[in-house]
Amino acid sequence: MKGTLTSIALLSFLSAFSQTKNDSLTFRNIADVTMDSGKAYSNLYELTKTIGHRLSGSTAYEKATDWAAQKLKEAGADKVWKQEVKVPVWTRGKESLQIQGKDGQWRSVKMLSLGNSEGTKGNDLTGEIIVVKSIDEFEKMPDSKIKDKIILFNYPFPQNYIYTMEGYREASPYRRNTATLVAKKGGKAVLVRSLSTAFDDVPHTGGMRYEDGVKKIPAIAVGPKTADELESLAQQQKITAKINSHCGMNGEKLTYNVIGEISGKKDNKVIVAGGHLDSWDVGEGAHDDGAGIVQAIEIINIFKKLNIQNNHTIRVVCFANEENGTRGGDAYADSIKVKNENHLFAIESDSGGYAPRGISLEMDESKRMQIQSWQSLFLPYGVYDFSLTHSGSDIEPMKMQNVPLSGLIPDSQRYFDLHHSESDTFEKVNRRELLLGAVTMAQIVYLIDKNW
Amino acid sequence: MKGTLTSIALLSFLSAFSQTKNDSLTFRNIADVTMDSGKAYSNLYELTKTIGHRLSGSTAYEKATDWAAQKLKEAGADKVWKQEVKVPVWTRGKESLQIQGKDGQWRSVKMLSLGNSEGTKGNDLTGEIIVVKSIDEFEKMPDSKIKDKIILFNYPFPQNYIYTMEGYREASPYRRNTATLVAKKGGKAVLVRSLSTAFDDVPHTGGMRYEDGVKKIPAIAVGPKTADELESLAQQQKITAKINSHCGMNGEKLTYNVIGEISGKKDNKVIVAGGHLDSWDVGEGAHDDGAGIVQAIEIINIFKKLNIQNNHTIRVVCFANEENGTRGGDAYADSIKVKNENHLFAIESDSGGYAPRGISLEMDESKRMQIQSWQSLFLPYGVYDFSLTHSGSDIEPMKMQNVPLSGLIPDSQRYFDLHHSESDTFEKVNRRELLLGAVTMAQIVYLIDKNW
Repeated sequence: MKGTLTSIALLSFLSAFSQTKNDSLTFRNIADVTMDSGKAYSNLYELTKTIGHRLSGSTAYEKATDWAAQKLKEAGADKVWKQEVKVPVWTRGKESLQIQGKDGQWRSVKMLSLGNSEGTKGNDLTGEIIVVKSIDEFEKMPDSKIKDKIILFNYPFPQNYIYTMEGYREASPYRRNTATLVAKKGGKAVLVRSLSTAFDDVPHTGGMRYEDGVKKIPAIAVGPKTADELESLAQQQKITAKINSHCGMNGEKLTYNVIGEISGKKDNKVIVAGGHLDSWDVGEGAHDDGAGIVQAIEIINIFKKLNIQNNHTIRVVCFANEENGTRGGDAYADSIKVKNENHLFAIESDSGGYAPRGISLEMDESKRMQIQSWQSLFLPYGVYDFSLTHSGSDIEPMKMQNVPLSGLIPDSQRYFDLHHSESDTFEKVNRRELLLGAVTMAQIVYLIDKNW
Repeated sequence: MKGTLTSIALLSFLSAFSQTKNDSLTFRNIADVTMDSGKAYSNLYELTKTIGHRLSGSTAYEKATDWAAQKLKEAGADKVWKQEVKVPVWTRGKESLQIQGKDGQWRSVKMLSLGNSEGTKGNDLTGEIIVVKSIDEFEKMPDSKIKDKIILFNYPFPQNYIYTMEGYREASPYRRNTATLVAKKGGKAVLVRSLSTAFDDVPHTGGMRYEDGVKKIPAIAVGPKTADELESLAQQQKITAKINSHCGMNGEKLTYNVIGEISGKKDNKVIVAGGHLDSWDVGEGAHDDGAGIVQAIEIINIFKKLNIQNNHTIRVVCFANEENGTRGGDAYADSIKVKNENHLFAIESDSGGYAPRGISLEMDESKRMQIQSWQSLFLPYGVYDFSLTHSGSDIEPMKMQNVPLSGLIPDSQRYFDLHHSESDTFEKVNRRELLLGAVTMAQIVYLIDKNW
């Protein structure tokens, strides 16, 4: 009996060992084929340079849906389709912010209306700028000091978080909520120091929202330098700003998520990998989130090139409208409920095309522990971080269907230098870093497909 | 007795726990002070923009020694001095590479003579180009096919290593040794595809060497694109190249390592942190190795700002002549032998100013295991890799004195896109990534100082 047990233990050990060895070889093959002949980088070039930025609701976004469908077919998807999503249509139009100096002259400063903000309908909105460092400081001020003023929040991006997403989270209320705070105290407009890790003068846009029933005053981002200059000027003199903008909401429009899949050999349970196809209406949406789109498509390329016989359906979803509504994510989550599809796992890449460091795990403990037990397979690829953190905005609605969620964790140091700004261009993406992210995604999808 | 033992075990556990908690707090303070007000980035701006590239033996290098001494003083070093180093003087001068097309016309292509190469003394050297893909292929060719020819080695940088240093090591013989191989078979000159991970047309220089007694033929780097174009052209027609260059060795010169230290409170045992102050004579030597210099100087800044009472001497060494001789490293290692100084530890940063991922450990196993046991302290800073790999060329000569050696391991993906080329400029360095490298170095120096 003891002998038998030992033999079983030995066999089980040998089998586990040879399994790990096989997985390690597949991991190597995935990396080799991607680093040598991956398409993610040239695909990203096409998306950013032939289409460019693509806010959902825009003509560019429509072009992007056709492009994504074409790329999914080229990668070898068995089935490609578009899924209807109704999105809000926000447009920017012409806009300007001018500051009046001591000499009475107006000078223009770099600015971007925040996404979803209402503008001045082409009229000049003029008012004194009051500078505050924080929401706390603002809340302590009497309404009389705010009334009819333009408030500048010069809250710097906290630099001492190592993972910059945490600094972003801390600073986000300044972009999202200050318009409503200011409107409630009778202010005319709000200027916000951009949520940027850089110290340049590039304004970063991004989603803001109005509280129901509160006046929708214009909300504008300025670059860190402009914010500091205005603060320092305001200490010396009264400064007046003139805002003229045309941005605002223009109803809704029907558009699409773009989906492609390779069927499973065993069943039709689904593994989703995705990113969002829309971007803000500045720059080229290269890191945010062209990178995620081309990495997800690369997974199909890799499975086809290596002729991996997947058990389950591997489905790539290019989500619409992450930036100002997450309607694509909602529509997809609704559809799997309606179709009663069994989803095993979903992973999103939406933190930039930088060298991967980990995979976030939003799922029950037993599943998390199983994935963490695979760490040694990932370590040679620089992937070591399997934290229980946020996965991705587009897949988050699937939580309601109890889908185990996961997000690619790339190095975060450079992301907020360019996020939502003119600086988010193809040239800022490194080929190897982008491809390595696709490698990590394909590797985890391979293991999930094989083991779940 | 049992009770006593338990109490001792408990006390020892509590002491270890509170120790770890203290270290973890100091780690946090080091990161906070560096990310909020570190000087490494502005120091790098000064070094790259006011001095620029600085091959040892050049006037720029002399300026850099004064600059480094000044920065060490400003950081708060108790003692700053220069250490004599005799270095070879290699100069580039004017140079060109022209290719004759089918139409008989000459066109110039981008090129850089390899460091240490002899040139054509201003004469035209003309010859047919023979393209080979590898040293293997070259070795199999009869001498008659090489004689009087110019050989182009179009060996691509291996892309499938995840840690790019390994690809670099594999490709390095093409840059270092091919001139001698070609000369032995009677060839006139050698062209080498640059050791670059990029697919652009930027030539990368770097050290080459001639074997004693073999003719010193010109050795030139071309960009990856030029190499591929020449290969494809050579398949269609005979191609002729014309080289004209003035590079070569011009004797030796006395110059300096620059050293600064803060004395220890307990003894005069030494902990060294360093980088190399010289750079190749193109670009600005920003990642290679301005980054290492400003990171090492930052350690003194950090210790002073936090008022850390170091037990041992913390010494920053800015080494001369890493790029073409490592004479600075040799001189330093000789000096500690002569002065009989006890060196506890040395760390070098010479792999670029990218986000840190680890610390290499070249030392005996017990010391290595002790450092590895500190891993959990480093993990929140993205530092997880404590491999037994190469530390740094400048500190390597200290191996003879049995000094435990270590090297900062930054992310390696982008380094060989710009290494030794015009692209290695300040603009390619990210402020946060650079500062994080300094954080890691200060953290390990702090732990070594405290525990060894």
